[in-house]
Amino acid sequence: MRKKKINGKIRIVPLGGLSEIGKNMTVIEYNDEIIVIDCGLGFPDDDMLGIDLVIPDISYLINKQDKIKGIFLTHGHEDHIGALPYVLKELHVPVYGTKLTLGILANKLTEHKYETQPELVCVKAGDVVESGSFKVEFIHVNHSIADACALAITTPLGVLVHSGDFKVDYTPVDGEVTDLSRLGALGKKGVLLFMCESTNVEREGYSPSEKNVGKSLDNIFMRHQDKRIVIATFSSNVHRVQQIIDASAQYGRKVAITGRSMLNIVSAAMELGYMKVPKGTIIDITEMKKYPPEKLTIISTGSQGEPMSALYRMAYSEHDRVQLGVNDLVVISAHAIPGNEKLVDNIINELCKKGISVFRDQSVSVHVSGHACAEELKLMHALVRPRYFMPVHGEYKHLYAHKELACSMGMPANHVFVSDIGKVLEIDGKGIRFNGVETAGNVLVDGLGVGDVGNIVLRDRKHLSEDGLIVVVATVDTNTYQIASGPDVVSRGFVYVRENEELMEELRAISAEEIDKCLSRGKVEWNQLKNAVRDELSKCIYQKTKRRPMILPVIMNI
Amino acid sequence: MRKKKINGKIRIVPLGGLSEIGKNMTVIEYNDEIIVIDCGLGFPDDDMLGIDLVIPDISYLINKQDKIKGIFLTHGHEDHIGALPYVLKELHVPVYGTKLTLGILANKLTEHKYETQPELVCVKAGDVVESGSFKVEFIHVNHSIADACALAITTPLGVLVHSGDFKVDYTPVDGEVTDLSRLGALGKKGVLLFMCESTNVEREGYSPSEKNVGKSLDNIFMRHQDKRIVIATFSSNVHRVQQIIDASAQYGRKVAITGRSMLNIVSAAMELGYMKVPKGTIIDITEMKKYPPEKLTIISTGSQGEPMSALYRMAYSEHDRVQLGVNDLVVISAHAIPGNEKLVDNIINELCKKGISVFRDQSVSVHVSGHACAEELKLMHALVRPRYFMPVHGEYKHLYAHKELACSMGMPANHVFVSDIGKVLEIDGKGIRFNGVETAGNVLVDGLGVGDVGNIVLRDRKHLSEDGLIVVVATVDTNTYQIASGPDVVSRGFVYVRENEELMEELRAISAEEIDKCLSRGKVEWNQLKNAVRDELSKCIYQKTKRRPMILPVIMNI
Repeated sequence: MRKKKINGKIRIVPLGGLSEIGKNMTVIEYNDEIIVIDCGLGFPDDDMLGIDLVIPDISYLINKQDKIKGIFLTHGHEDHIGALPYVLKELHVPVYGTKLTLGILANKLTEHKYETQPELVCVKAGDVVESGSFKVEFIHVNHSIADACALAITTPLGVLVHSGDFKVDYTPVDGEVTDLSRLGALGKKGVLLFMCESTNVEREGYSPSEKNVGKSLDNIFMRHQDKRIVIATFSSNVHRVQQIIDASAQYGRKVAITGRSMLNIVSAAMELGYMKVPKGTIIDITEMKKYPPEKLTIISTGSQGEPMSALYRMAYSEHDRVQLGVNDLVVISAHAIPGNEKLVDNIINELCKKGISVFRDQSVSVHVSGHACAEELKLMHALVRPRYFMPVHGEYKHLYAHKELACSMGMPANHVFVSDIGKVLEIDGKGIRFNGVETAGNVLVDGLGVGDVGNIVLRDRKHLSEDGLIVVVATVDTNTYQIASGPDVVSRGFVYVRENEELMEELRAISAEEIDKCLSRGKVEWNQLKNAVRDELSKCIYQKTKRRPMILPVIMNI
Repeated sequence: MRKKKINGKIRIVPLGGLSEIGKNMTVIEYNDEIIVIDCGLGFPDDDMLGIDLVIPDISYLINKQDKIKGIFLTHGHEDHIGALPYVLKELHVPVYGTKLTLGILANKLTEHKYETQPELVCVKAGDVVESGSFKVEFIHVNHSIADACALAITTPLGVLVHSGDFKVDYTPVDGEVTDLSRLGALGKKGVLLFMCESTNVEREGYSPSEKNVGKSLDNIFMRHQDKRIVIATFSSNVHRVQQIIDASAQYGRKVAITGRSMLNIVSAAMELGYMKVPKGTIIDITEMKKYPPEKLTIISTGSQGEPMSALYRMAYSEHDRVQLGVNDLVVISAHAIPGNEKLVDNIINELCKKGISVFRDQSVSVHVSGHACAEELKLMHALVRPRYFMPVHGEYKHLYAHKELACSMGMPANHVFVSDIGKVLEIDGKGIRFNGVETAGNVLVDGLGVGDVGNIVLRDRKHLSEDGLIVVVATVDTNTYQIASGPDVVSRGFVYVRENEELMEELRAISAEEIDKCLSRGKVEWNQLKNAVRDELSKCIYQKTKRRPMILPVIMNI
């Protein structure tokens, strides 16, 4: 196929993604036609103070709307679809995805009060969408959410395969194994470029089957028939929730659900036919008192220790419907995402204090990962046998480890392209190369504001968070060159004022002195005045406290 | 021993410790005599914004100075001695510890510019200190710092054993195995209460020997004779540093050291005879250019990813002496402490980007823990065979897991006492029980301020960090009831003002309107005025941005 003379050019640009590259959103161009894979959000790093969400910077696409054939979604996780409610306000293009993916998306659009519904096109695994020069085929894969797909994108220059997020589960809950034979057939015909996720490349071996969790749950339910069982897990893991419901039904338990996202997704999954619940098994949480506790299961959000999640509220006795005690058993059916370990540990400590037994994935296998481990990745490479390889969906260390993995299987190192956010990978008849960088990156969402918080605002927040603030206010009479009122010194987040009145009085005196000094020159240089006050206060405060609060002089005039 | 009629009473009070109980400082009383075990610091939790350190609240001891016989140190880690420079300013009592422990402490006291040196009494393992009714015996244990001890405290009511931090290393670098036979002899005679650390109780099996790290290092040095090797580790792990120096000497490398604490501890350890360095092996970092890179080892701080540590500066090309490149190999000989994972990952990503290979404990065994795992804890219980057991040095989940471990060995559950910070465990001729709570907890250190930052200040910092601040300033003429100047609206950490001039103008107008409204009543109720401005601005801002910045109205009068 690469032997034919074709003048076209493919360009691949990862947009957005925090520390992970090629995760949230990827642009694929063929000449002047564009398709987009996924459109997800990220959760803020520790230094993004006060930020709620992070979405990809789509400036690069804004003036190319007419060229965009569509956004193709691999699956319904936040980091792959969560930015759409923001992005679809700017980009009016069709969105392709499987039923569950679009079902979850539709819920989000409703929450964001979309007036005109964007064009959502429902596909199923095996479907091929022809848009312009592209043919996009959806290929079934296993993942920790149902209805996940890899994509095979046929272009005039060759076939690109994007793995999406996947694992290989030979005994999946829904019976459908990752479509290895289709991937093999593609490999046999020839794949130009493979973009493959890298999340678990550092983990050896294989990720266990989701059914293993079912077995552990059965074991727990069998051995603890005298206790109420509370299980926290990811709301989007429909198969996990199904297995919890199955185990409950088998042991004659009713199931109550708590936590908004859990309620939302379970009802969407039931409605769309992704979950089978024996009639009468699910009860409203208000009905719990009708049943003996040992005949109840509570499925809850909060498996990442999120403050104010249902599990958090239960642990800290703040839940209005559930009080936990020694007759409860809590199962955390999830692995703490890096950065959340302490939050989860805090909840476990709180539960231990109440004498409640806790099972988590460290002690029994109540969780399995949804991402392929090293041997599964090798299987994928062996099936797809790409000419070129671009590791995606990982931090640098993962991408480089994935490159090593590919090279260990015989891939030449110069056929592997570790990209970066905004970095353009270009393929044409002559070959493949990085060529330039496009505008890309992250846009911070804070409340209703999208992109109005940038580095200066974050730097101020960090400064304020570390040593607080001192405001000096004075009114100056520009006729007499006298202080007309003040200076007043107000502090927040600095020290207890009541216990430091002496220091505050000294700061007031220094301010007055500096203002007088500037005024005595018979004219008011406002900036000079403010800087003088700021410098002198800063010096005094650092000497006495070794702290550097933000100092904000506000000088008014009459 | 317990059969004799003795009227005395033992009280055990854990002071300080953040999420971990019985870690930083423990008070042991017999009637009106007191000894203290350890005096360490903690590092602030994520919500303690701007705080540098956390030290134990010693109010309980302040008025009992004359009763305190001494502070007994188990080993020289920060979490066991780090609060002494603050506490010894208040408590003038002798401090007992082994040579390396006191050596590290003395360095700290010098940094804190102590004028009169506190009374530091050097002991060695096997020594017994008689103070009042107590006999305190130091017993050698293995740990990730040399010269660590458990304590056996003989009281008229019986013997208390405190494990300190320990592991059982049958092939330690210094040749001295944890003194199991002495602990066995104590157990044979009868131990009243065992206080045992719980850090690794959730880990099965045994912690590997420190010598295993030596073998891995040898392997790395043998296979990478063409590269410069950079190794980051804990500066206090004298034996680890010794093994790095040994491997370097064996392969004909010179060793340069970077990072202040690494330089400090290595020179202290060499001086005190805890490290043997072949002559000429250690060179100053400025001399590196005299040697080919592949004949150099660099030992560095920063194994926890600490910003501005030596490893951090090398990774981000900010180190003034070392530039890293593809011919370097970096070894992180440490495990990321919970909460530090992201910091460490960031550094590894940065190194990967530069094409530098990184070895860490996940891939090869370049680190072992210094804390006993479950089977070692069982060994300890089997030797000490205490009547009562108080798990210490762990979060609740660890303490409860340690209780379970003890009970699985036959300890009756009502002989196990899971304590809390400030909770008093009381033992007398009649038995053992919790009885009351003493003042205890944590004091926050911010710059030079010890305890002047409390919950209100932290709450303000958190508020400021999330949505920033708006200051409204106006001067009011109380003769005319008119605004004489302003209102001015100043914001920091809220939004980019330049891009939001319209909003800022609206806030100014609302403020003016509210002030006018209050003034029109012909008198000035200052608080009412401020509240009115704050409420109206808050309402407008929330509606437009869904944010809640701190609003600080400052109204002056002329």
